[in-house]
Amino acid sequence: MVETHIYRMMEQEWGSSFMRRAIAIARHGMTAGNGGPFGAVVVQNGIIVGEGWNQVLSLSDPTAHGEMMAIRDACRRLGTHVLEGCDLFTTGEPCPMCLGAIYWSRIRSVYYGFGVDRAASIGFDDAFFYQQLHLSPEARSVPCRQLLAQEAETLVLEYVAMPNRMSY
Amino acid sequence: MVETHIYRMMEQEWGSSFMRRAIAIARHGMTAGNGGPFGAVVVQNGIIVGEGWNQVLSLSDPTAHGEMMAIRDACRRLGTHVLEGCDLFTTGEPCPMCLGAIYWSRIRSVYYGFGVDRAASIGFDDAFFYQQLHLSPEARSVPCRQLLAQEAETLVLEYVAMPNRMSY
Repeated sequence: MVETHIYRMMEQEWGSSFMRRAIAIARHGMTAGNGGPFGAVVVQNGIIVGEGWNQVLSLSDPTAHGEMMAIRDACRRLGTHVLEGCDLFTTGEPCPMCLGAIYWSRIRSVYYGFGVDRAASIGFDDAFFYQQLHLSPEARSVPCRQLLAQEAETLVLEYVAMPNRMSY
Repeated sequence: MVETHIYRMMEQEWGSSFMRRAIAIARHGMTAGNGGPFGAVVVQNGIIVGEGWNQVLSLSDPTAHGEMMAIRDACRRLGTHVLEGCDLFTTGEPCPMCLGAIYWSRIRSVYYGFGVDRAASIGFDDAFFYQQLHLSPEARSVPCRQLLAQEAETLVLEYVAMPNRMSY
């Protein structure tokens, strides 16, 4: 019990500096008009290896969320598409897009400052998108239909037959 | 009934050329070793305004899925972060990350060639990630914890108080 408590305290102390850096980055980006109050850092072995902030407006890129930019920055710096053993510190709880990127990058754990409900209260759609993803594809507001299944299957079979294909 | 049938046939005819382009792009990328058999195009008013293919391996970027690249390409060409009225044609059913990006970009509808189960059968984790997103945050394999909630709330309040903030 005591050990767990001490461990939690140490973890919070350790993580606080990284979260404060994420908040500082977010503040810088939002005051510059780059986007919302979202910043993130990727940490590996106690060192920041990637940073990013929301640049949806400044880059005209709907995928330029803080977490995405931080993950891409870390991958660029480390020369890999895999961030195993890394932790992500982000001012706002990840949206489904960013959570998907977190899974693809194999990040180990996530720390966030404010939740998706708070983001919703200031006009962001993260919570609505989570609701949408929890619905069956037919019930979602963006319809998703299959087309040319046979030609797509041919492509898949060609991929499977490739001798030197790398998995990821 | 007959009208619906004719409409569906016309829609398939219309969409087939775009899906074939997505398949061709995917084939080119996968044979070059850029990544898996995934390509996508964004269509606006019957014209392709964005293209992309999976470049996870060639760019060392876990976010470089075909759909993401196509959305970013379309936004770059059109100079906007909003793709309202656009449709996306993609060889593979979107993963949660790409579906999130589709929602953020306000794309109208999606057509895909093969489903996430088929992608799973050749080693991709899309279906597993959907299962993960359907779980409560505490039950997911990547833990997500709150940290420095008060300092993050201060940031949110600063954002709310900004006089000229743009919503998106």
